[in-house]
Order: sequence, then C-alpha cells, then structure tokens
Amino acid sequence: MATRQLKLGAFMRPVSLHTGAWRYPGSYADANFNFGHMKRFAQRLEEATFDAFFMADHLAVLNMPPDALKRSHTVTSFEPFTLLSALAAVTERIGLVATGSTTFDLPYHVARRFASLDHISDGRAGWNVVTTSNPDAALNFGLEEHMEHDARYARAREFYDVVVGLWDSFADDAFVRDVEAGVYVNPDRMRRLDHKGPHFSVRGPLNIARSPQGRPVVVQAGASEPGRQLAAETADAVFCAPTKLGEAQAFYADVKRRAAAAGRDPDHIKILPGAFIVVGDSVDEARAKRATLDSLVHVDSGFGSLSTMLGHDVSGFDPDAPLPELPPTNASRSSQDKIMGFARRENLTVRQLAQRVGGYSGLAFVGTPETVADQMQEWLEAEGCDGFNVMFPYLPQGLDDVVDRVVPELRRRGIFRTAYEGRTLREHLGLPRPENRFFPD
Amino acid sequence: MATRQLKLGAFMRPVSLHTGAWRYPGSYADANFNFGHMKRFAQRLEEATFDAFFMADHLAVLNMPPDALKRSHTVTSFEPFTLLSALAAVTERIGLVATGSTTFDLPYHVARRFASLDHISDGRAGWNVVTTSNPDAALNFGLEEHMEHDARYARAREFYDVVVGLWDSFADDAFVRDVEAGVYVNPDRMRRLDHKGPHFSVRGPLNIARSPQGRPVVVQAGASEPGRQLAAETADAVFCAPTKLGEAQAFYADVKRRAAAAGRDPDHIKILPGAFIVVGDSVDEARAKRATLDSLVHVDSGFGSLSTMLGHDVSGFDPDAPLPELPPTNASRSSQDKIMGFARRENLTVRQLAQRVGGYSGLAFVGTPETVADQMQEWLEAEGCDGFNVMFPYLPQGLDDVVDRVVPELRRRGIFRTAYEGRTLREHLGLPRPENRFFPD
Repeated sequence: MATRQLKLGAFMRPVSLHTGAWRYPGSYADANFNFGHMKRFAQRLEEATFDAFFMADHLAVLNMPPDALKRSHTVTSFEPFTLLSALAAVTERIGLVATGSTTFDLPYHVARRFASLDHISDGRAGWNVVTTSNPDAALNFGLEEHMEHDARYARAREFYDVVVGLWDSFADDAFVRDVEAGVYVNPDRMRRLDHKGPHFSVRGPLNIARSPQGRPVVVQAGASEPGRQLAAETADAVFCAPTKLGEAQAFYADVKRRAAAAGRDPDHIKILPGAFIVVGDSVDEARAKRATLDSLVHVDSGFGSLSTMLGHDVSGFDPDAPLPELPPTNASRSSQDKIMGFARRENLTVRQLAQRVGGYSGLAFVGTPETVADQMQEWLEAEGCDGFNVMFPYLPQGLDDVVDRVVPELRRRGIFRTAYEGRTLREHLGLPRPENRFFPD
Repeated sequence: MATRQLKLGAFMRPVSLHTGAWRYPGSYADANFNFGHMKRFAQRLEEATFDAFFMADHLAVLNMPPDALKRSHTVTSFEPFTLLSALAAVTERIGLVATGSTTFDLPYHVARRFASLDHISDGRAGWNVVTTSNPDAALNFGLEEHMEHDARYARAREFYDVVVGLWDSFADDAFVRDVEAGVYVNPDRMRRLDHKGPHFSVRGPLNIARSPQGRPVVVQAGASEPGRQLAAETADAVFCAPTKLGEAQAFYADVKRRAAAAGRDPDHIKILPGAFIVVGDSVDEARAKRATLDSLVHVDSGFGSLSTMLGHDVSGFDPDAPLPELPPTNASRSSQDKIMGFARRENLTVRQLAQRVGGYSGLAFVGTPETVADQMQEWLEAEGCDGFNVMFPYLPQGLDDVVDRVVPELRRRGIFRTAYEGRTLREHLGLPRPENRFFPD
C-alpha cells in the first residue's frame, strides 16, 4: 500500500472517561453494568473497521473525597477481562485489548486468560501490560506500602518473560489428535518452562495450546525511562499521551530508536497516542459541545482535581475570576506551570479550568470531520504516531460521530482501511506472527 | 409445585471427561479450543432447560508419564472464566458456573470476576469454590510444597468471607444517577470492607455494583470433614461423587443436618451428585456403547491409572486374564478392595479394568431413556439428591441423547421443568436472593 495507514484503537470506559459524560444529553449513564450497550459500541466500532477495542481498568474504587466520589461514574464497571471475553462472542474481527496487572496478578493466570481469549476470539486478544501505579489498589491486595516504581518495572519485565515463555509451551503442531494411533498430543512438541527468577518460580507448561496469534498482542503505556525501555524491548503497540505534535514526534523517534537498538524492526512497534475527538457541523459547534460537556463536571469534583494538580487548595478562590498567581508548593513545578499557562492561554475562569481538568485535559481534536481528519493526517505524516487510541467524549453519540463522520473522511483520504485486510489483531496492525522460542520453524 | 423437581447441571470438559472420548466416532476431538462447539453445547443444554453449565478446571498440565500424557485430551482447554464469559453473550437463561481457586488466586480478583459475570449474564453466575488439591498446580504458582489440607480449608473459609463481603460493597440502590443533582452514587450506600485476617488484608470496596443475584451462586465439592462443614455453612449447591444410593443418602442427610445446625434452611443447599449417562435403544446397546468407549482408552494410560489406584505396578500382568490377588501395599486398602471387588463383580480382565478406571469409574446410569429416568427418579425420591451434575460420555452425541431423549422422559414424569420459571440461576435452583450484610432491607 502506497500511503501510510492509520491504526485506530478505541480507548473505552463504558460511560466515557470524561467525568461529566454521564450527564450529557442522550448518554448511556448505566453502561458500566449494561452489557447490551457495550455490545452495541463494539459492533459499531467493528463496522468502522477499528483495529481494537481497548478496555481501561482500575483495581480499586479510587480513594477520593466523598463529594467527588459521589459524582463519579468512572470508579465502578465491568472487570475488563470478563467483558472482552463476552464481546469476543458477539464480534468477528475487532481486536480486544484488556489490561493485566503485573503487580497484582500472577503470570500463570495472565498467560492462561489471554491465550484463552486469543483462542475464543480466533486471534484478536491483546494484553495491556500495566504495573498499576495506584496505591489504593495495593490495599485491596494486602499490601500496605505500594511497590516502588523501579521494583514494579523489574517485576513487570520478569512477569512478561514468564508469560511469553508460557505462551510458547506447545509447538503449533503439537496437537496431532491421531485417533487411530491414540495419540492426542506429541510430548516432544511440548516444553516445560522451569522458570526460576527473583520474583517468580513457574514450572509450566501452560495448559493451553499455542494460540492463533502465536502470542497475543502486547501493549505498553509507560512513559517513564524504564517504561519506554520495557516498551521498546517487549511491546507490539504503545499507548501514549503527548499533548503536542512536537512532543509526540520526540517520543515516537525515541521509542523507535530504542526498538532498533534492541534488535527489533521499528515498524513492528506501533505508537498510538490517546486522542479525545469531539465532532460538530462547524468548529464552533464542536467547541460548544465540549464546553457543554465540561460544564457538566460538578465543581466539587473539578475543584478536587485542580487542587491535586496544582498542589494548592483552590476552594477559597473566586470561581468566576481568573486563576490568581500561586505561591510555590511541593507539587511538581512543571505540572503547575503547565496548568497555569493553559488557563491563561484559553482565558479560563477557575471554575472553567477546574471543569476542564476534572473532565479531560489531554490531546483533543475538536472540530468538523474535515478538521479532525486534517489533524490526524498531520500527526501521521509528520511521524508523530502510527495511529490513535480514540476516546469518545460521550456515548453513544460521540462514538457514532466518529464512526459515521470521521472514519468516512479518513477513508476518502486513503489513510484508513475500508475493510479488514486480515483476521487477527496482529494482521490488522501489520505485525508478524512471532516465532515460538522453543520450537523455531 | 406438588412433585419434587430435579435440578440438572452439566459437568463439562470440552471433549468429555472420559479419556477415551476423543476417539469415539463422531466426537469433536478439537473442542478444547473450538468455541463454536462449546457454544453449540451450551445452547442445546439451554434448550433442554438445564439449570447450569459447569466448567471443570485444572491449573496445570498434570504430571503424568509421557506415555499417558500423549493420549490425554483432558489436560489442556479454555480457561473456564474466559469461556463462560463468552458463553454468557450467546445464551440467555442457563446458569454459568466456573471454578475459582482459593489457594492460587486472590479474593479481590475472584469477587470482581464473578460479580462481573453475574452482571454480564444478567444473574447467571456461579462460583465453584475449590481449594485445588493438585500439587502440580502449586509448581506453577511458585510453591514448592503443596499447602496442607487443613491449611487450605482455613484459607478457603477466610477467602469466602472476603469475597462475600466484597460482593456486598454497595447497597442495591446505591447507584442513583441523578443527572440534575449531579450525583452518580450515594456514598452512604457504599461500604469499605476493611478486612484484616490471618490470610488476607483487603480494604475494599469492590469496584462493582451489587450484582443481579445479590451474590453469585456458591458451589462446593469437598467430601472431607472440613469440606462438608464448609459446604454446609457457605454453599448454595454441593457437587458430590457417591457411587451408590445408600452412600448418597447418608451424605445428603449429613450435609442437610449440618446446614440446619448452622442456622440455615436445609432446602437452600442443593445436593447434586455427578452422574455419567449413556443412552441406548436398549440397555444392552447402551452397555455396548460404554464398552466401546472404554475400549478406546489406550492401555498405556489405563495401566497407569490402575497402577496408581492399586498402589501396585500392573504392567507385568497378563492383560487378558483376570486381576490376580495382590500383596499388601502402601496404597489405601479401601481403594484397593473397592477396585478388586468391582473387577470380580463385573468379571473384567486386567485390560478391561484398566480401561474402565482410566476412563471413568464413578456413578453411571447406562440404559434406555426410561431406565435412566427410573434411576434418576429413584435417587430423587429416596432423598439421595436434589438433582444431578450430568456428565456426557462423548460429545456431541452423548449430550444430544440426554437432551433429546432423557429430558423429555423426565418432563413426562413431572420431575423436570418444561420451561425456565425465572431468569437467574438462583431462581432456577429455588434459592432466595441473599440480603446484603451491610445494608439489610
């Protein structure tokens, strides 16, 4: 194919990750526990030939003040693995990516579930490797102290090695099922892992045949130094959160360079920034929709988020005045500067700023199908990304807008597929099927 | 309803739990990793208004000699939780029971997944609480020594308490979703568990709304003294493996008595023995089918199983002669006596005996639809059980025989439903929806 093509994932929270979304007119506020809605979303995304449906996750009801907690739809929802397994049965092509924590789960369980999902979905499973940085999760798993950052990454690296080794327990041709001879599986084509490392001791073999993709697609999202390195060595796709093209280009070049240095083909690691897309008939209408959405973030939760980000309690400020100058605090100076610069640039009151950061404050494309496609195309062509992990402002309308209006525009430009080229998620992403480490072809 | 009704579960391994089944003519030998076959089985069982589809599990490729391992279809298959979640999306009424290990998993994960499956399936989830007695599993989870029996049960009891407590994290009316007021959840109707015990420390709350059944159905299968007591205190249903009616009646009376002693209504714990059903046009034809099936167990695996059960290597014996008298061994004397008595009674050669015990040697109803129904009715009326956990000798035919021939006979007799009376698995089993321990009505 002549033109580079966008890869598109959908980064889903059932009601949207925007905290005001459940109050937006027409939203499915109960989607957290309504499988019918989730099925509709996945089937529409498949109609639009999205590469993958990605379910974000938390391992806790996040610890927030009751005034913020009571307004949040984001802290409770289906466990992602259960949900994606169910969606596998009612979709045929779209990839299904779930989060699996290397800090609070065990490699035999994780290897088994993802291999199983890959079999059930006929090659559409993806594992988003997360180290779970949320300290509230630790308290649900018997850990008083949250594991320190570098220790989490060391454990993640070993966890990954064990999982991938378990996925290779059987050669692709191990299951011979010779009825006449009475031989079901060839034991010479099965391998015990016998892993013994600092964090895990796992004998194996996995009790699952090698899966259709050989190995489920591995996704990473860490932006830190060890996170980037882990991704460059192990990931098939990287989710990231740059807010400007320059920043994205630097990240893109860095991860591709690291992958090449690790002996990999840089084209076999796809970089997918998160992008929040709001569509209108005009740019002004799209902006107005976003303003309406932000206005639905209750000030109590917005003030909480803003105070956290600034490291300063904002509840005493006049909500309808601009943000005053702040004294130095213990919070990250760069985070504070970023927020303050943003408030000045967009000329926001304290209330508006609180509602923006309390809702969603990352990369957003807000405009007509054409202007949104212009920005996506620019990022693709400027090597800021290989595609996007799209976030919808409210559901179902925000998703339908992308499916019905943006995707056709991307297709018209020849930068997004009009039909799935293959069957598996690896095929959608243009990734080879990995060789079995124990049974090379 | 005037007559006591049978409750029927299907105890599934994808290819059958009989080790010769994959070689039986017409069998789906690849069902272990063929979702289409599993979907067909579940939908047919739902057509027959079975109470539940129960997926058995192992947490390891069992350690057996290569000569036996290579002939086994039972050591690899879908992870049950993934499978049942997928089946939830393509069925509407049948209960879905999966195994969750209290020894090798963690309560927050288990509580989350089963509550999630209960939401996705609209109230059809069941948790088979197992303590995992297989030492090969321990090696996949970093434990050199398998945990001792009583320690496993102590951990299981605490694990259960934590899971049930987490399921009750939210009152049924907690999620108010008041768009106008901007209140999504009422924090006064949410409860942190704050559990600290000898095995687990879990803060909570669970990040899942209370599920349709209030709590998924809890199943137990332990036959030991602590197993029976745990079941009597905690289980909604008990899977058991008596081989004779007298034995079943004694177990039934004992568990119901223990339940009453624990302050429970004995009718709210259902006793379901496993029953292997082979159907023919005549009793002789059914027996011939079973003999054919047993003959497909390769002698290598049969000899291994028989040697283990007798505590004596049988490989030197004449396979076509009767079993000779054995010297005393370290093996359980009662197990040895049982096998030897059985061999004499049925007049089996060593080969036939090896094939029988290597295939399946528990309770079996082998006959016409009428004689099978006679036996099931006798067990029900004599208070040997509340129903059965049916095992199919080979699939799909053995399942279709039960669905198409035995179930209509049971219905004709008025001892099995002709249509589902309710929506949830609790309703099928005649169990009340449990009160929330933190938010009583």
